[in-house]
Amino acid sequence: MKIVNVGANISIKRDIDTGTETQRATVEAIISQVKEQGDQALFELTKQFDGADLKSLRVTEAELEGAYAHIDDTLIEALREAITNIRDFHERQKRQSWLTTKEDGTILGQKVTALDAVGVYVPGGKASYPSSIMMNVIPAQVAGVGRIVMVSPAGADGNLPASVLVTAKELGVKEIYKVGGAQAVAALAYGTESIPAVDKITGPGNIYVALAKRAVFGKVDIDMIAGPSEIVVLADKSADPRYIAADLLSQAEHDEQASAVLVTTSKLLAENVAKEVQEQLTTLPKREIAGASIRDYGVIYIAHDLVEAIDVINELAPEHLELLTEEPMNLVGKIRHAGAIFVGPYSSEPVGDYFAGPNHVLPTNGTARFSSPLNVDDFTKKSSIIAYSKQALQENGYIISALARLEGLEAHARAIDIRLEDK
Amino acid sequence: MKIVNVGANISIKRDIDTGTETQRATVEAIISQVKEQGDQALFELTKQFDGADLKSLRVTEAELEGAYAHIDDTLIEALREAITNIRDFHERQKRQSWLTTKEDGTILGQKVTALDAVGVYVPGGKASYPSSIMMNVIPAQVAGVGRIVMVSPAGADGNLPASVLVTAKELGVKEIYKVGGAQAVAALAYGTESIPAVDKITGPGNIYVALAKRAVFGKVDIDMIAGPSEIVVLADKSADPRYIAADLLSQAEHDEQASAVLVTTSKLLAENVAKEVQEQLTTLPKREIAGASIRDYGVIYIAHDLVEAIDVINELAPEHLELLTEEPMNLVGKIRHAGAIFVGPYSSEPVGDYFAGPNHVLPTNGTARFSSPLNVDDFTKKSSIIAYSKQALQENGYIISALARLEGLEAHARAIDIRLEDK
Repeated sequence: MKIVNVGANISIKRDIDTGTETQRATVEAIISQVKEQGDQALFELTKQFDGADLKSLRVTEAELEGAYAHIDDTLIEALREAITNIRDFHERQKRQSWLTTKEDGTILGQKVTALDAVGVYVPGGKASYPSSIMMNVIPAQVAGVGRIVMVSPAGADGNLPASVLVTAKELGVKEIYKVGGAQAVAALAYGTESIPAVDKITGPGNIYVALAKRAVFGKVDIDMIAGPSEIVVLADKSADPRYIAADLLSQAEHDEQASAVLVTTSKLLAENVAKEVQEQLTTLPKREIAGASIRDYGVIYIAHDLVEAIDVINELAPEHLELLTEEPMNLVGKIRHAGAIFVGPYSSEPVGDYFAGPNHVLPTNGTARFSSPLNVDDFTKKSSIIAYSKQALQENGYIISALARLEGLEAHARAIDIRLEDK
Repeated sequence: MKIVNVGANISIKRDIDTGTETQRATVEAIISQVKEQGDQALFELTKQFDGADLKSLRVTEAELEGAYAHIDDTLIEALREAITNIRDFHERQKRQSWLTTKEDGTILGQKVTALDAVGVYVPGGKASYPSSIMMNVIPAQVAGVGRIVMVSPAGADGNLPASVLVTAKELGVKEIYKVGGAQAVAALAYGTESIPAVDKITGPGNIYVALAKRAVFGKVDIDMIAGPSEIVVLADKSADPRYIAADLLSQAEHDEQASAVLVTTSKLLAENVAKEVQEQLTTLPKREIAGASIRDYGVIYIAHDLVEAIDVINELAPEHLELLTEEPMNLVGKIRHAGAIFVGPYSSEPVGDYFAGPNHVLPTNGTARFSSPLNVDDFTKKSSIIAYSKQALQENGYIISALARLEGLEAHARAIDIRLEDK
């Protein structure tokens, strides 16, 4: 790994992939086809892209139950424990509707309502992660979303992976369709004969899925479009270089575009981590990917002190931040921008990726400056409530008319005046 | 106004204005120019588009104070009362960071942090609404945003309207720049010598501003891009047709694209409202605009009963909804989609537009299905906190490794294993 002083002019910023002209045109064409032909388009495109010749799109109860034969019991237990933890954490995010009343009879408030229907995209094949299904479905369930739909491309044999089906079944998701790519996103946004439209689409996918989500945004809501993943570790001399190296590599194995960064006040630690990374890399199954990520987007910054180190971190606004310092909890208040903050030597990032409870869908590529982890709020919306009494209007109406006239909106003023005249 | 039965095949849906090819190209060119030339571009474009030959962009304290001479004292009092109400309502939206602890030493939580810097766009000339400034600035202030910047195009005389300056001064906004259009949005997103970049841009604007916001989205956050405004009134035979007509017209005067809808269970009321609308229209200063809006996007639906009426409303997902029925509060729970719900005969929409406290920046054109009024949450973001103890990791680490291996992510599993091996 490169070792540089803070302030060195190196960039680990990655560009957001907005696709090629051809990719964008393909996605537009697929969306049009699904809007016009509905299910017929889905069957055709599924045959074309996934090689599966399906007779029906919906996963049956028998398929869901059959999948259990392929998954180890201890793994099912593990999934259940993770689901319990994730559900518990998200339950704590729930918000209540509220009202406030005034003596003149005014009632003001905010009503919180779950979305009617949400679609969760689950990527196909090797990229189908049970943890991702849990992280997208559970906040929607906790919010109280009435209808939660999963879509995922079938393999050429017409089946979804057993781990996907078991995870869905464990979560209680009942409406699952074997369709992927831009066509799945189009179906969720516009609806087809088999798949009624939803109000929001979440979940990761390849560039075609990402472009389709961008294209339907506005018709429906979408979650953020995730960029490549990143980790930043802040460590002082007390930290164990082996732990840091292992955590940096766990990020690097995701993607050649993933970024792994250490910011440290210790030059010795920097050198030891660089050494450990090389050593641990040699035995990793995904050493090619992780190696490329470390080479291109890995860097160790040496800071004069923790103040300078924290400035770097707030500048990077990392998706994942680990604090491996002597008193890590004391630093949490100084972190202004981070998707998730992992505190202390036992809070390795995978603890949060799979199990602890907080969501692993986090703002990437510096967007933690203004974005949040996926959460229950993302599956609800608010409505303001305004109930004015006759007394309240008579006391305040003239002010409201005056403000309307200041803006030249006479009809607004008259809507108040007509009521004031009725004594 | 058209009077039809529920289920009649008429559409009042308006298309979102995504601009012409030429407009989009103009916006792209302006953004590039600002990125490359900074302040120089701002001065040139301001001369070109606004006709103002400025020496400096920033509004001075003397300008702010001088503006008071042009605004009536009673209006200043009105602004102050409105600010107090709006601030009070938004204070109630504030969320606290929270932690939860477990006996094994685990700490999990959610840290709420205000955005560092926000830019509020204020349209120029006649479209500069003091109420819009209050509604955008106050939630950012209540959230605790460190730096709030206002941008607004100067008139040809190099000045901003007195009402804009006084409202800014009353709110305590100190950083105001005389720049508008796509160039203002570009400056806020990328920064120039005079205007440091922000993290989020909110506020309404013309098509160039809207296209520029879309273009910089991702680099910074933006609020929603508002479509044309709409009101839906739900009324039974108990309602006063004069009130309803006045409220429908207050929406219609905004814009020829604005939409005003009545859903009622009373045929007699429908006819009386249609008559009242025509009558009240004749004396309105903006009767041309309001008349076009009523003609093209005004409709009265007659429903069999309240159940059918409420189905229509949930289908429309209106920006503004007024309930003018005998027991309006009983209906609030049945409304699943609405930006703001105005309850009862004295809650005329302008009460909420200016004064009551809830925000008037609301989801338009059916997006209340998944969007919320502008609120304090929009100016904060969350970070997850995960602090695992040694005990917690030793007890749960094997599950975490197992889940990582199920997904084929060996480096994730090893980051846990290396810690488990250290007893």
